[in-house]
Amino acid sequence: MDAAERLLAVEEIKQLKARYFRCMDTKDWDGYAAVYAADAVLDVSGESGVPDGEGVIRGGTAIAEYVKGQVDPVTTVHHGHMPEIEITSPTTATGIWSMEDMLRWPEDAPIDWMHGYGHYHETYEKVDGEWRIKSCRLTRLRVDFGMR
Amino acid sequence: MDAAERLLAVEEIKQLKARYFRCMDTKDWDGYAAVYAADAVLDVSGESGVPDGEGVIRGGTAIAEYVKGQVDPVTTVHHGHMPEIEITSPTTATGIWSMEDMLRWPEDAPIDWMHGYGHYHETYEKVDGEWRIKSCRLTRLRVDFGMR
Amino acid sequence: MDAAERLLAVEEIKQLKARYFRCMDTKDWDGYAAVYAADAVLDVSGESGVPDGEGVIRGGTAIAEYVKGQVDPVTTVHHGHMPEIEITSPTTATGIWSMEDMLRWPEDAPIDWMHGYGHYHETYEKVDGEWRIKSCRLTRLRVDFGMR
Repeated sequence: MDAAERLLAVEEIKQLKARYFRCMDTKDWDGYAAVYAADAVLDVSGESGVPDGEGVIRGGTAIAEYVKGQVDPVTTVHHGHMPEIEITSPTTATGIWSMEDMLRWPEDAPIDWMHGYGHYHETYEKVDGEWRIKSCRLTRLRVDFGMR
Repeated sequence: MDAAERLLAVEEIKQLKARYFRCMDTKDWDGYAAVYAADAVLDVSGESGVPDGEGVIRGGTAIAEYVKGQVDPVTTVHHGHMPEIEITSPTTATGIWSMEDMLRWPEDAPIDWMHGYGHYHETYEKVDGEWRIKSCRLTRLRVDFGMR
Repeated sequence: MDAAERLLAVEEIKQLKARYFRCMDTKDWDGYAAVYAADAVLDVSGESGVPDGEGVIRGGTAIAEYVKGQVDPVTTVHHGHMPEIEITSPTTATGIWSMEDMLRWPEDAPIDWMHGYGHYHETYEKVDGEWRIKSCRLTRLRVDFGMR
């Protein structure tokens, strides 16, 4: 790959991740499911509310259903920053993103709000000409909560 | 346009939007006016404090005067994230940006602070060799206020 | 430099700054030191807690030691946004970044938290084939504190 091809792949992966955020926060669950490879793996082990041993979800469709189940009724704002994307072959790449999420639950939930900060550690795969998220693992710098 | 030309246009539009934010927050109103095309349209319908039917401002100069009138005495912080920019021709483009704004009013204002989140939906035009914002519409995910 | 070469330099500088943030917030001090040129200059004059005339630190190693001394025990989250990077020669560049930092001190400190917003004004140099931060000056839009 020459410099322009690598840069184009980097930009395409940035826009893929932009759709990940926008579709989640606007509750466009079809659009959200489309960012994942069919055999994608999401690892949210250690996230609050995630029982031990249940933080790994396998398959793009299952991931989208899981995330929808977690946040569909929640007002969510997710931001990504400062990507470090490395194109490792014409069809594979890795990336680290700084992230921040601000959640507000409906009034009948025991939790009022959450405000968190951390990093996504991801891999990507180009499938049928389009980049998809192949794996995503979330680590945290800090998480704050407000309970009702 | 080849890949390098498209990527250059994407980067130029990112830097155009960066000047939009920096000039607004540092109150560089000449610099702020220069980010718009002469016939630009800003749509802030639905923003708090905007009367029904008065949220569409037409013309780059009028937009800059309007925004200055709204926030010149306000300590503002505006951040943009995760652009999805599509180059639709050598002189036209579209973009969606995630955004966050944090405003603090002077002590004699009835409102103390505002903290909002949403998306810009924009179009761009290359005029005399430079990309400008042609239209901008703001949608919101969440807005919080503190009154005095 | 052709368009692809300039864009590659811009992307490399973005990833350099991404390492600056990630290494500081994860306390990877060796990685943090490696983002600076040997003769780099950091100017944090005007930052709270910085005595007059003591805000300029010279030398990449000294900068890394200074920053470690300031924030190693502090839970820090630093985000960068909206870069305006200009490649001024094959080995030099300038950049402006919007920034936000959220700090939480250990329980025995008199200060509880700080939340700030501003801009980095930077220069970069390519040394032995790798971009490094050559100078960094921080200006502020707003800073909030909470004391214990």
